[in-house]
Amino acid sequence: MTKTKPNVVVIGGGTGIYPVTTAIKHLDIDLKTIIGVSDNGGSTGKIRDEFGFQPVGDLRQSLAALAEGEGQEWIRKLLLYRFNKGNGLKGHNLGNLILTALQDMTGDTSEALFRAQQIFRLEGDVIPATKENVDIKIYYEDGTTDIGENNLNPEFLKGKKVDKVELTPEAEINPFASKAIIEADYIIIGPGDLYGSILSPLAPIGTKEAFAQSEAKIIYVSNLMTRENQTDNMTALDHLKKIEETIGRIIDVVIINNKPIPENTIAHYEKSHEYVVSDDMRDDQRVIRADIISDQPPETELSDGLSRSFLRHDSEKLQKLFTTIINQ
Amino acid sequence: MTKTKPNVVVIGGGTGIYPVTTAIKHLDIDLKTIIGVSDNGGSTGKIRDEFGFQPVGDLRQSLAALAEGEGQEWIRKLLLYRFNKGNGLKGHNLGNLILTALQDMTGDTSEALFRAQQIFRLEGDVIPATKENVDIKIYYEDGTTDIGENNLNPEFLKGKKVDKVELTPEAEINPFASKAIIEADYIIIGPGDLYGSILSPLAPIGTKEAFAQSEAKIIYVSNLMTRENQTDNMTALDHLKKIEETIGRIIDVVIINNKPIPENTIAHYEKSHEYVVSDDMRDDQRVIRADIISDQPPETELSDGLSRSFLRHDSEKLQKLFTTIINQ
Repeated sequence: MTKTKPNVVVIGGGTGIYPVTTAIKHLDIDLKTIIGVSDNGGSTGKIRDEFGFQPVGDLRQSLAALAEGEGQEWIRKLLLYRFNKGNGLKGHNLGNLILTALQDMTGDTSEALFRAQQIFRLEGDVIPATKENVDIKIYYEDGTTDIGENNLNPEFLKGKKVDKVELTPEAEINPFASKAIIEADYIIIGPGDLYGSILSPLAPIGTKEAFAQSEAKIIYVSNLMTRENQTDNMTALDHLKKIEETIGRIIDVVIINNKPIPENTIAHYEKSHEYVVSDDMRDDQRVIRADIISDQPPETELSDGLSRSFLRHDSEKLQKLFTTIINQ
Repeated sequence: MTKTKPNVVVIGGGTGIYPVTTAIKHLDIDLKTIIGVSDNGGSTGKIRDEFGFQPVGDLRQSLAALAEGEGQEWIRKLLLYRFNKGNGLKGHNLGNLILTALQDMTGDTSEALFRAQQIFRLEGDVIPATKENVDIKIYYEDGTTDIGENNLNPEFLKGKKVDKVELTPEAEINPFASKAIIEADYIIIGPGDLYGSILSPLAPIGTKEAFAQSEAKIIYVSNLMTRENQTDNMTALDHLKKIEETIGRIIDVVIINNKPIPENTIAHYEKSHEYVVSDDMRDDQRVIRADIISDQPPETELSDGLSRSFLRHDSEKLQKLFTTIINQ
């Protein structure tokens, strides 16, 4: 009898999806990523306004992460290329334009992603968390609300503190995402912006139910830094609790970096009122502490013109760690 | 000893390259296409103005023709997709944007094409006729001149008759194109607009010398219709002579359609002052006459917003014919 490969699901969005996906894509697994589709900023937001399709930016990042293999360098470069000139082209990611064209031709984001995977021979599925065209609704601690993920940027928040997020309009989970969660052997959540990248793909109706039916071991990769007005003062345990509350399950494994972050990096973040997420998990048996941060500055090609964190999880270090957690 | 495949070179541009390339790509041959790079209209012209690279429109058409295989349907669709909305995107071909991004990343059109063939697994090489950034210089019969391929459109010509074209600035043949011509066993020229699509890729300095060194059998696929102010009243033999004069060689095989063109199609063309190219080749032993026209209207996805001929050469019929001419 052939041993079936373990089903591994990665849930997230933004740039956080990149190091985790590339870390595990070389393992002998069946890989699926479930990606939030509430982004409305930058190139993605502009295309979204003009075409009315689901936002493609985080989907494109996730596809590009799947192209981290031998002979796939130029596929990745193509998907991440950003035009730096051209009237109406400047600022657009080519990968976004490719996905938009496929959305237009297929009429469906999931099929567009399937076609992209086929065209570029990418192993692994990229699944939008919901099939609906949604935005994030932000509830602030002062009782007010706002709509749109771009409002999570500190310059828009203007001192308001985020309490929680929902999707608007309310949306069901994509059946493919639900199936992937139910059939998963391992589910990896994070790292990434807590509200925009982690809680957004977990927000659709039916997500809790899928987790309830799943026997997957759930792994959370803890964020390295807080974000101003979003996760100020939140500890590792605070982040964890927010996620556990959202999925209705206890997380089984928590991965926390224990390599000291250089003083000058910390100083750089402090200018943006961002601080190291403090590890208050003590002797919690679920925690694995390891050096998982990159010794190198991030690849500039990941940039889409928005501010990006300077500190990164390291794919190779994460890969070694996941090899010890995931039974292949 | 393994029998080596015959080297077949197709020379042309515009939409004419499409039926011929798709006709022969399934034969057991080594295929190279040499494409004119003097286009300056539509999406191509806009990108050319803004980025300063060689024009990509005809190169993209030629790449797309190589994607006419099993399982390549979506690659072809992607390369031929045209945005019909979006500020600054509307009217652009996605294939043009992909080639532009690759030109920007590689700094060289030939390398961009190589990367595109690699990314999309296309068999066959697409070679720009020259590495220089050129335009067409048009000499009219009244002694005046103009620069830019878009001036060949009847609405710009305003009754002036084209006498000949050159490239400006004068440009050497791309060494890869020269090598391909010299090493070819068969060279197929046309069909296509005589000046913009056929004589433009044959115009670089060194083309005659390459033909002089080549032992290839040269095949010309005769145009079906004349074009207003360009080839008015020109017979099949007139077209042939212009090409023979340009390449400095006698053409070995001339393929001419002998299926009657429907009256209503002729009437449709007459409105644009375009007429059936008359076959005055009589009993010239070089001529092969056959039914090679499409019974179906052309695929609309070929459109890039410019006027296109309604009548088409048929790929399957051409394929059968080429099978009898090319020794595999």
